[in-house]
Amino acid sequence: MTNSNHETDTVCLDLWVEENHAEIQAQRFRVTKVLASGTSDFQRVDVVETQALGRMLLNDGKIMTSEGDEFVYHEMISHVPLFCHPNPRQVLIIGGGDGGTLREVLRHKSVEKAVMVEIDALVVDTCRSHLPSISSHLDDPRAQVLIQDGVEFVKSTDDKFDIVLIDSTDPVGMAAPLFGEEFYGNVRRLLTPEGIVVSQAESPFYFAETQKKLNEILLSQFSLVRFYNYSNLTYPGGLWSFTFASLGLCPLRDFSELKVEQSGLMFRYYTPDLHRAAFALPGFMLRNLAS
Amino acid sequence: MTNSNHETDTVCLDLWVEENHAEIQAQRFRVTKVLASGTSDFQRVDVVETQALGRMLLNDGKIMTSEGDEFVYHEMISHVPLFCHPNPRQVLIIGGGDGGTLREVLRHKSVEKAVMVEIDALVVDTCRSHLPSISSHLDDPRAQVLIQDGVEFVKSTDDKFDIVLIDSTDPVGMAAPLFGEEFYGNVRRLLTPEGIVVSQAESPFYFAETQKKLNEILLSQFSLVRFYNYSNLTYPGGLWSFTFASLGLCPLRDFSELKVEQSGLMFRYYTPDLHRAAFALPGFMLRNLAS
Repeated sequence: MTNSNHETDTVCLDLWVEENHAEIQAQRFRVTKVLASGTSDFQRVDVVETQALGRMLLNDGKIMTSEGDEFVYHEMISHVPLFCHPNPRQVLIIGGGDGGTLREVLRHKSVEKAVMVEIDALVVDTCRSHLPSISSHLDDPRAQVLIQDGVEFVKSTDDKFDIVLIDSTDPVGMAAPLFGEEFYGNVRRLLTPEGIVVSQAESPFYFAETQKKLNEILLSQFSLVRFYNYSNLTYPGGLWSFTFASLGLCPLRDFSELKVEQSGLMFRYYTPDLHRAAFALPGFMLRNLAS
Repeated sequence: MTNSNHETDTVCLDLWVEENHAEIQAQRFRVTKVLASGTSDFQRVDVVETQALGRMLLNDGKIMTSEGDEFVYHEMISHVPLFCHPNPRQVLIIGGGDGGTLREVLRHKSVEKAVMVEIDALVVDTCRSHLPSISSHLDDPRAQVLIQDGVEFVKSTDDKFDIVLIDSTDPVGMAAPLFGEEFYGNVRRLLTPEGIVVSQAESPFYFAETQKKLNEILLSQFSLVRFYNYSNLTYPGGLWSFTFASLGLCPLRDFSELKVEQSGLMFRYYTPDLHRAAFALPGFMLRNLAS
């Protein structure tokens, strides 16, 4: 077999990756190349090259992130809490195996240590090889990458953290406990007095019940709970949420634009205005959370 | 042929409608029934029943609106300008053949007349028959529905309007002039001194060049131009924009939460907080518009 015409062959193949949501809607991206495919004890992991959004990571066929839009998610999960906290030094990331959240967290000079606890080594290894712009800081001296179950980690560790980021997949299978009361009880135990926990919180359009339940669980553990929204190109519905929970720090009252300016950092999505704006929720979402 | 088993037959057919964006990405919705299909001088018009979002209108195969998410678009194109204007009485809608924008505009008691100029009678007739919750106010005594080219209308009318809403499709084919300088020169001529024009302005992710050009055209005609964003479930990329252009009125400075409260109106998406938040733009979008 000759490979001289390899590129043309790839283009001629009408290859698409499709993610199906509840068998009633789907999104598809044209794929120019499948870069990596593997199966771990936990899931199937693939990286494909798409024309629309560059390289894309899929776990069990679900789109996790892509080079084209990853900045939105990773900036919003990180900078909203980190710019609220007066001096975030110790940060814990549960999940986040692609490394994008870690990369954004480490842009803050105050951070002395960022511990990332990812259950699946295959995700980390695959992203290290095939998504270098996202996984770029896995070997940073301030980073500690643990291949371990995050649920077990928060149960057993004695370390304390200023910021905990739950960078999880949907609340099914191994990620389901990350949306549970026991887990958040343990997370609260790890927090320093000004601590903040931010969690991936699904979509208000398609996961209203999940959001309502997560809100109740967080309210049982934390004195302040607020949802905030961002736009994702690759998750169904576009409008997606994070939760911000703390022992008292408020994402609006305790946030100062000056801190962002003084950091000298420049972002592709996050701005001080957008920080505040993200907490303005649509009417149907407010009513769902209050019901 | 017997129809006794008709419903089962429909369910067994694995029917999907797919919208393709630039041949590199697509979204699909499961269809339980095709309710109407027709062709006018301008386009093909279909209404299908989807499982995910109820009935859906497609013009030339492009998703225009659906029962499940139409409220976001229609509330945001209408209430942002109408709550900024001190006394909106005369409103002009260019396009908007499904009637959703008209429905929202007429919720404002100050509005004495809302003129809707839609080029394609087939869109209006199809929505009247098959999307009753959206087209519900086409026969309102304060509404005037004209089947006419909006480009010609703004060129020839002597009427004046407090609010002009450009509820258009993408800037291709017959809708292309609605994104042009001549059109906006004519729109400006129709405006009362405190007038506002709001336009459907595509997506910052996928139509950055269109947004940049539209911004330049509006700035050449109006003293104040601001983009604002909303989340759409059925347009590629999720994050979509409107432009707000005026002869001076500012969507933030001249907006009062009190006006919304006093209206007694309740919305599914729009809130006073979200009104302000919508004008906070992502970093990459600010840079594109300023470049």
